[in-house]
Amino acid sequence: MKSRIDAVLSTALAPADDAPPGLSSAMRYAVFPGGARIRPSLCLAVAEACGNDAPALAEAAACSLELLHCASLAHDDLPCFDDADVRRGKPSLHRAFGQPLAVLTGDALIVLAFELIARAGTATPQRALALTMVLAQAVGTPKGIVAGQAWESEASVPLDLYHRAKTGALFTAATMAGAIAAGRDPGAWRPMGEKLGEGYQVADDLLDAFASSEEAGKPTMRDVALARPNAVAALGVSGAISRLRALIAAAADSVPECPGSTPLRALVLQMGERLIPARLKQTAA
Amino acid sequence: MKSRIDAVLSTALAPADDAPPGLSSAMRYAVFPGGARIRPSLCLAVAEACGNDAPALAEAAACSLELLHCASLAHDDLPCFDDADVRRGKPSLHRAFGQPLAVLTGDALIVLAFELIARAGTATPQRALALTMVLAQAVGTPKGIVAGQAWESEASVPLDLYHRAKTGALFTAATMAGAIAAGRDPGAWRPMGEKLGEGYQVADDLLDAFASSEEAGKPTMRDVALARPNAVAALGVSGAISRLRALIAAAADSVPECPGSTPLRALVLQMGERLIPARLKQTAA
Repeated sequence: MKSRIDAVLSTALAPADDAPPGLSSAMRYAVFPGGARIRPSLCLAVAEACGNDAPALAEAAACSLELLHCASLAHDDLPCFDDADVRRGKPSLHRAFGQPLAVLTGDALIVLAFELIARAGTATPQRALALTMVLAQAVGTPKGIVAGQAWESEASVPLDLYHRAKTGALFTAATMAGAIAAGRDPGAWRPMGEKLGEGYQVADDLLDAFASSEEAGKPTMRDVALARPNAVAALGVSGAISRLRALIAAAADSVPECPGSTPLRALVLQMGERLIPARLKQTAA
Repeated sequence: MKSRIDAVLSTALAPADDAPPGLSSAMRYAVFPGGARIRPSLCLAVAEACGNDAPALAEAAACSLELLHCASLAHDDLPCFDDADVRRGKPSLHRAFGQPLAVLTGDALIVLAFELIARAGTATPQRALALTMVLAQAVGTPKGIVAGQAWESEASVPLDLYHRAKTGALFTAATMAGAIAAGRDPGAWRPMGEKLGEGYQVADDLLDAFASSEEAGKPTMRDVALARPNAVAALGVSGAISRLRALIAAAADSVPECPGSTPLRALVLQMGERLIPARLKQTAA
């Protein structure tokens, strides 16, 4: 599934002859090589479970989710936010291309995400508009990634809103987008995305606390350094792993009845297991 | 027309209860009080000339253009680009709210622009998708504002591409979007937008060279300071004004036949006259 997603992303990011070459390179650098492509994989898995009768639209939706995710990483790594030197095991975008192109790359990836949906949606325009709404709400304000990041500029942060916006929103959008692309009611797919988003947050906390920088592909121990809340600090290692497994099980249970619900439930459990850092599995066994 | 545009913008930017308050304030600060709202006015004027049978969609398209314009100003003013302290006669966004919120405000305005179109487009989804495409192409790469700004990071800049992307793209999108919102063929409206965009660039060059900072609402003499190409340097004052008037006349001439073509031509000439800084009109008379 990852190779299919990468192929569509690569086509979308093919540099145009008359584009500024630095921006074209920076956009590809921000997206390739990717991480686990977990959000687009989730979107495609849901679309397939729902019958996937408009596969090009489902692929566009999946890729849009990944472009929006990569855009948020490009901007979050900037010196005025996390000032991160490393991302996915290589220099962060602004370290490699400078701040101007890092800002512009984030902008261009956001725009491209919406363009992909519009381009793929002409045969099913109502689905395309519904996808646009779900993606916009997952990225914008009040409840999307950008709003989540903006909570960091407030003196007092409601943690629940913060995590739901910054991490959860794009997972919820992923399951809902998969359903919309296949012509299903997206509301029924929201709980699955919410549980997976919460689970991913716990997994990220485990990674931050226990993985080496090489394994994580980015600096770790940032939560302790920045005094951010972390599920490991709150629950302990085995408590956090139990919580993660419970959330993944709840996500699998919440898969609505549909043609492919059985294999999708199995896939969710498998994806969840992969979220636990290898060296911690023995601790929790 | 400006007050109608401002009313729709104000509704779109009404702060949600659960939004991070700083981001909500910064988004309004970036959009209000506005400049001349020339791009959205142009879009609405074209829609009205074309019969304006879907006025809510035309208003959404007009406001999206303004949000995308304001987003580009917010990002262009950042220290890593123009490092501007003043915009529209008040402290620039990052001076007033800090760099993190200035970056996030630009992002959130881009997202909101696409959300507005999708929300207003359910009754005419094909038009909404066409609007999304036109707006995305006017903002993204290879030929939109972001690409225009990215040319500044290149060692060698093709001036024609640079100006068409950085200034012209949103004018072309404005006339085309007005036509699309009213169900007309957008291609016929492209030349009008192109001529107006070129004219606006000349007007901006005149403003940079001859207006005081107070009149311009932003620092002037930047082209000389940054050794940027400028129509005044190339053509002289009266040459630049003649060029501006010729472009506006060409824009008026290029208005396609439609129910309201006669008043629209008059409006274009009137808008064009307003682009000439008052103190220079005598010079050119």
